[in-house]
Amino acid sequence: MRINRERLWTRLQSLGGVGSDPQGGVSRFAWTPEYREACRILMGWMEEAGLTVRMDGVGNILGRMEGKHDLPAILTGSHFDTVPNGGRFDGMAGVMAALELLTTLHESGYIPERPIEMVAFVNEEASQFLGGTFGSKAMCGVLPSDYTRTCLHRYTGQPLREAMLEFDMNLDPDHIEKSRINPCDYLAFLELHIEQGKYLLNQDLPLAVITSVAGIRQFYITLKGVSAHAGGMAMEDRHDTLMAAAAIACEVERLALCSGSNTRGTVGYIQSHPAEHNIIADESVIPVDYREDDDAIWADYYDKLIHFVEEECAKRGLEYTIRTTIDLRPAHCHPQLIKIMEEEAASLEIPHTQMVSYPCHDSVNFERIMPMGMIFLRSSNGGLSHCPQEYTTPEDMEAGTNLLLNTILKLSKTENLD
Amino acid sequence: MRINRERLWTRLQSLGGVGSDPQGGVSRFAWTPEYREACRILMGWMEEAGLTVRMDGVGNILGRMEGKHDLPAILTGSHFDTVPNGGRFDGMAGVMAALELLTTLHESGYIPERPIEMVAFVNEEASQFLGGTFGSKAMCGVLPSDYTRTCLHRYTGQPLREAMLEFDMNLDPDHIEKSRINPCDYLAFLELHIEQGKYLLNQDLPLAVITSVAGIRQFYITLKGVSAHAGGMAMEDRHDTLMAAAAIACEVERLALCSGSNTRGTVGYIQSHPAEHNIIADESVIPVDYREDDDAIWADYYDKLIHFVEEECAKRGLEYTIRTTIDLRPAHCHPQLIKIMEEEAASLEIPHTQMVSYPCHDSVNFERIMPMGMIFLRSSNGGLSHCPQEYTTPEDMEAGTNLLLNTILKLSKTENLD
Repeated sequence: MRINRERLWTRLQSLGGVGSDPQGGVSRFAWTPEYREACRILMGWMEEAGLTVRMDGVGNILGRMEGKHDLPAILTGSHFDTVPNGGRFDGMAGVMAALELLTTLHESGYIPERPIEMVAFVNEEASQFLGGTFGSKAMCGVLPSDYTRTCLHRYTGQPLREAMLEFDMNLDPDHIEKSRINPCDYLAFLELHIEQGKYLLNQDLPLAVITSVAGIRQFYITLKGVSAHAGGMAMEDRHDTLMAAAAIACEVERLALCSGSNTRGTVGYIQSHPAEHNIIADESVIPVDYREDDDAIWADYYDKLIHFVEEECAKRGLEYTIRTTIDLRPAHCHPQLIKIMEEEAASLEIPHTQMVSYPCHDSVNFERIMPMGMIFLRSSNGGLSHCPQEYTTPEDMEAGTNLLLNTILKLSKTENLD
Repeated sequence: MRINRERLWTRLQSLGGVGSDPQGGVSRFAWTPEYREACRILMGWMEEAGLTVRMDGVGNILGRMEGKHDLPAILTGSHFDTVPNGGRFDGMAGVMAALELLTTLHESGYIPERPIEMVAFVNEEASQFLGGTFGSKAMCGVLPSDYTRTCLHRYTGQPLREAMLEFDMNLDPDHIEKSRINPCDYLAFLELHIEQGKYLLNQDLPLAVITSVAGIRQFYITLKGVSAHAGGMAMEDRHDTLMAAAAIACEVERLALCSGSNTRGTVGYIQSHPAEHNIIADESVIPVDYREDDDAIWADYYDKLIHFVEEECAKRGLEYTIRTTIDLRPAHCHPQLIKIMEEEAASLEIPHTQMVSYPCHDSVNFERIMPMGMIFLRSSNGGLSHCPQEYTTPEDMEAGTNLLLNTILKLSKTENLD
């Protein structure tokens, strides 16, 4: 079976543009009026596709096509919000692929063996209410029950709870646990997403079957030392936090380059006090972001870096503290899902490769509770993403959606995933 | 001959406190009403000491005691302004030592062989009108003629010219060249200053004879690269300016530690853009401050660092520019002045050592046009300076002033300095 490229492309262009901003991009943040407008359009199309449509208590949109048998369903989808001044493909590609394949099935009158559900996650980008992958976290049951009271709008300070009530779509911010799904009701979760890098572009391939989503750890190392005049204080008497921070940043890079894997280690900036050109910094903060798909290397990287920090601080007479903001171990795509995707891509004659996703996705939350698989589509415009220039061709969208459709059809006939 | 410790201490405490601020320190900035108040008190005491007193066209205060012969004079003094929330000793110690030794000579009726002049420099600290050592620069003739029009108050934007006219002491901001002295009229310049570090405190010594004032170079290295997502971009495809900045900061330290001298290399902060924890920085600025007293090592350090910057940028595909704000080669105290000070300290039985000054002083400007010598006094309170806790004991003040007096008496009998 094949999807309708023209319909997919037209709908993607049209819905992807809701929330256009004056800077030529799209700013469609969760629980805003423009987000509601997009929801209404999507839910209308979902109903036209014969789905049973509902919005859960936090704002995720779900649509279900029943199957011949009352078996665990196949769930597929992606996120529906954007970054500030983003593009039309990030997240939306996966939502529209899910809608298109279900619309194709509905048109053809095909009844799958199992139920198929599509989902549009709310607030994955977390552009206003920080945290990331909010909607899928709610579905996977990993949010604290008071989350909507403690999470505040990053600029206005408005509690998330109020924004959800103002959204006026019967959300229930005081009972987010009701959005939690039962993993036994599902066979697998599949997500199609744009790559947001230039690996596939460089390889001249339309898509990839993902093997893992790299684990990500983000933490802030705060170093405390002693301030002094750059002229007055001898090198050997200093307790210089900036120099320690620089050495630690170099080690973040060295450990990534020498890990034996494709580890990515980043320090985006160093924040120092008092930040004067002729005063030794008595405090420096180093934000570390590293990503790695191998579990052992992932754990090892952190241990080695902290060991280095300890040695550096001992040598320089500094103290350090660490605040961790993200700590997500690697998420591995299910081997059988990878195998089915490989086989279907071959039978559809779609050139492809396998790769690791270094950005994080909603799929990571699902991997903890059910088999998970991912497809990446080529980001054509130099790999650019999170900007108005983000682009994926209609042909690549078509190839990816056909692969997702045929993977789901195959999967619906599969009894179990080991 | 010996100075009067009590008078010196009482006057230092009293005049050093003019410009007291609510934070318990002293904020006596050049060309302010409190600065004028301090000038009037000082000029009164100078007249009592029988000096011929004048304020030059920019605000430096000069007082001259004639000698037996019309020979080149000996000039001594220091600066009269403070940093924000500073102490009572920085600069003022050298002014009050000069006043006290001339008062002692006047009291005793002693007529020196040569004229002796004291000076209180204006705006060395440059707390409001940036630049540093303004008054001595004017006397040494190294300021551009339009300086008072182009130099603006760092907060209000008022041109220096207007502040000088409002000072109401008959300054002549449009003819700063009139403040320039003729080096042939002087035999030498001597400055007594507090150490502003803890070397003498650790050595348990009241004072040091300075051998050199380290050369200082301050410059900003701006690196330009390419921004990218910390997840999406492979390590080998990055053009990461923060990582290059960190490597350069480490090299600033390494070159200082390995120079074979006591070079001091400082990076007080690194400024990056866009300064997000998960975005590779496309721009980073590294302010470098290094100080070294050996001329060859001083020149070599810069060349080696820039060579490293070039290699680092070539390796990472970055571009760089350099903006230099301070470039002062080392200033060497005159060997004969060092020798006379050593001999006088020995005959006064003052324990002492020799050391290099890493902070910059007005004396650097004089070293370019005449023989220069310096005395450092112990900073007792943990070496603290540029803060209200700055302290030097009455005994150390006395020892330093006696050494200055006896050095000047010896010098007044010296025909020439080779």
